Amino acid sequence: MISKHIQKIMDMGEAFSEVFAEGAKLKEADGAENVFDFGIGNPNVKAPAIVNETAIRLLRDMDSLAVHSYTDTSGLPAARRKIAASLNRRFGTDYNEKNILMTVGAAGGLNVMIRTLMDADEEILTIAPYFSEYDCYAANAGVKIAAVPPNTVDFMPNLELFEQMIHEKTKMVLINTPNNPSGVVYSLQTLQKMAEILEKKQAEYGTTIYLISDEPYRELVYDGATCPWVPNIYRNTIVAYSFSKSLSLPGDRIGYLTIPSQIDDFEEVVTAASVANRTLGFINAPALQQMVVAECCDEQTDVSYYDGNRELLYRSLTEMGYECIKPQGAFYLFVKALEEDDRAFCKKAREHKLLLTMGIGFRCPGYVRISYCVSREMIEKALPAFRALAQEYQK
Amino acid sequence: MISKHIQKIMDMGEAFSEVFAEGAKLKEADGAENVFDFGIGNPNVKAPAIVNETAIRLLRDMDSLAVHSYTDTSGLPAARRKIAASLNRRFGTDYNEKNILMTVGAAGGLNVMIRTLMDADEEILTIAPYFSEYDCYAANAGVKIAAVPPNTVDFMPNLELFEQMIHEKTKMVLINTPNNPSGVVYSLQTLQKMAEILEKKQAEYGTTIYLISDEPYRELVYDGATCPWVPNIYRNTIVAYSFSKSLSLPGDRIGYLTIPSQIDDFEEVVTAASVANRTLGFINAPALQQMVVAECCDEQTDVSYYDGNRELLYRSLTEMGYECIKPQGAFYLFVKALEEDDRAFCKKAREHKLLLTMGIGFRCPGYVRISYCVSREMIEKALPAFRALAQEYQK
Repeated sequence: MISKHIQKIMDMGEAFSEVFAEGAKLKEADGAENVFDFGIGNPNVKAPAIVNETAIRLLRDMDSLAVHSYTDTSGLPAARRKIAASLNRRFGTDYNEKNILMTVGAAGGLNVMIRTLMDADEEILTIAPYFSEYDCYAANAGVKIAAVPPNTVDFMPNLELFEQMIHEKTKMVLINTPNNPSGVVYSLQTLQKMAEILEKKQAEYGTTIYLISDEPYRELVYDGATCPWVPNIYRNTIVAYSFSKSLSLPGDRIGYLTIPSQIDDFEEVVTAASVANRTLGFINAPALQQMVVAECCDEQTDVSYYDGNRELLYRSLTEMGYECIKPQGAFYLFVKALEEDDRAFCKKAREHKLLLTMGIGFRCPGYVRISYCVSREMIEKALPAFRALAQEYQK
Repeated sequence: MISKHIQKIMDMGEAFSEVFAEGAKLKEADGAENVFDFGIGNPNVKAPAIVNETAIRLLRDMDSLAVHSYTDTSGLPAARRKIAASLNRRFGTDYNEKNILMTVGAAGGLNVMIRTLMDADEEILTIAPYFSEYDCYAANAGVKIAAVPPNTVDFMPNLELFEQMIHEKTKMVLINTPNNPSGVVYSLQTLQKMAEILEKKQAEYGTTIYLISDEPYRELVYDGATCPWVPNIYRNTIVAYSFSKSLSLPGDRIGYLTIPSQIDDFEEVVTAASVANRTLGFINAPALQQMVVAECCDEQTDVSYYDGNRELLYRSLTEMGYECIKPQGAFYLFVKALEEDDRAFCKKAREHKLLLTMGIGFRCPGYVRISYCVSREMIEKALPAFRALAQEYQK
């Protein structure tokens, strides 16, 4: 009696559901402490102390009505001004409150932008590997999504194919850098080439192609890598952001969209996005969280902890014979499965108490994602299991 | 360049947008303190003190990772158990955590249920007057919505028309009691008659008709009125709830769905609803707020304050010659406009600094909604304006 739509969505998200369900079973059978859960991107570095201090101060000192009231559907003007000012300091932009729309995380923001921009006969182009929930977000709006096949050499976008796959109905290009699951950070040069292609295609078709840059991992970069500010490179860029990773607030559901004034039809788009935020049922991003992140948006998580995990896991796994690129961002390793079928490989990994996520969940079969936003201790304890798993395939 | 979909949504929500935009203009011109804003249902009774105390305690004493972590997409099991236990005490039910799905307010919950149950060739039946955002929620899923025309005698549902309007593609009936905007509370007898009709129609067509009862105003009742627990009356009922009004937490975006085990295809529906909550972009209801409302779900707002407003405004306006029923619930008066065109009437009201909401926003033209979740002082100050407005029409 459920809808055909949600059945389709459930089928699409099967890879994640299976990992989750099988992981839960394993934990119940063996005890959670005996399972090595590398499945989920749930930060294990605590939020900076000032986050809770700020929330407590607001709850204690502010007028209670003001703390809990509906906000503008775009968010509190004061919060949006603070975030705009922070971006201006960092990226040399000149945003104001009108350019910021507070959202229920990046997932909320992406759904808002897809609803705002896309009609059923238009297409979103993304680049594999990508978080396959994008498929659900597109389906929510009845919109087609296409993906540039993965370049498994270095996981940077294959720009030749990218160019070929843009057509006159491509209204949105959706990128994610630093990338989940590969951990690559798109370089300035790569983004400049993408911008050139997009400009050319816009001119060729006389259309607008909006580039949506999904950047919840913007601050999680290593080895001195930097994330260029994409709107400074391509004019029609909108950035979706979340504080889930950068401030370790995934349960809080708070993020924002940056909609620069320079994009085509700016006034129409910001007005419509605000309406979409309301009518999709978000109404407004949680009010307290809006105020907290506005005060804390320049705070940083302990990136060095993730970096230590990254170094340990990358070094250990490659020594054991696993193949993967060394990620420069996010908190995932995207590792080649030791057999062609990543689902079968994940199943075998579970026999060693290792929970991994199938590459098919990122539209890149033959690979698995390992989240290293976990405790160092768990990684250390899990290494023998990874070794035993590898040895099984060397027999 | 915005989508045709969002343009349609914007056109549908025009009545609210106009009220909001014109109100903002008036406040900017005259100063907010000189405008009588009866437009929005934003509670002006503070949340019970224990709400902020609980939030502060959790933020101070709990493990920070646990406070801010992703929760299950259905919500924290402990929070859901507390809410289930509270419902069981109040309504003699036997719910457990599986029957509760934490949502981003009732708006989130309604979108989740529509996505979970409805396909494009099926229809939602609701009863006018109704909150016209329902139209947007239906449109989000590409679903048709029909409404039983308003019965302006007493604003109770016209059950004869209700019965006539159900057909084999009616998969969902959506009711809202206590009702926004009329303030009527559906009596046990009315609900029993609706249940009989629904049972008959299910049998006639061999279909399942889910009744979604949208109840954010459940606790806001006066004159000893009570809200029967609808799932005890009609088996295929799902209840959407929000703490926006009952605990004065509209900005927090927290509510829940009650999905009783007795409904048809229960297992399928709860699983799909949880997936819908994730994939619509909500991911999970805000984690801190889940914990807070679970601890505070038996707390009550100061209903007597709203009751005082209701008495004062009802008495005063009817004395001035305005026509309306005396509401038994929610915090709105639904008043007959003094001319046929409620939009023109609202415009005239604005000349007297009165912000009202057009009846067309509730699919009931010729009426206006007056929110009395405002300060007593503002009502008292506004009465001469209401009088002057009435006198204009008596000339």
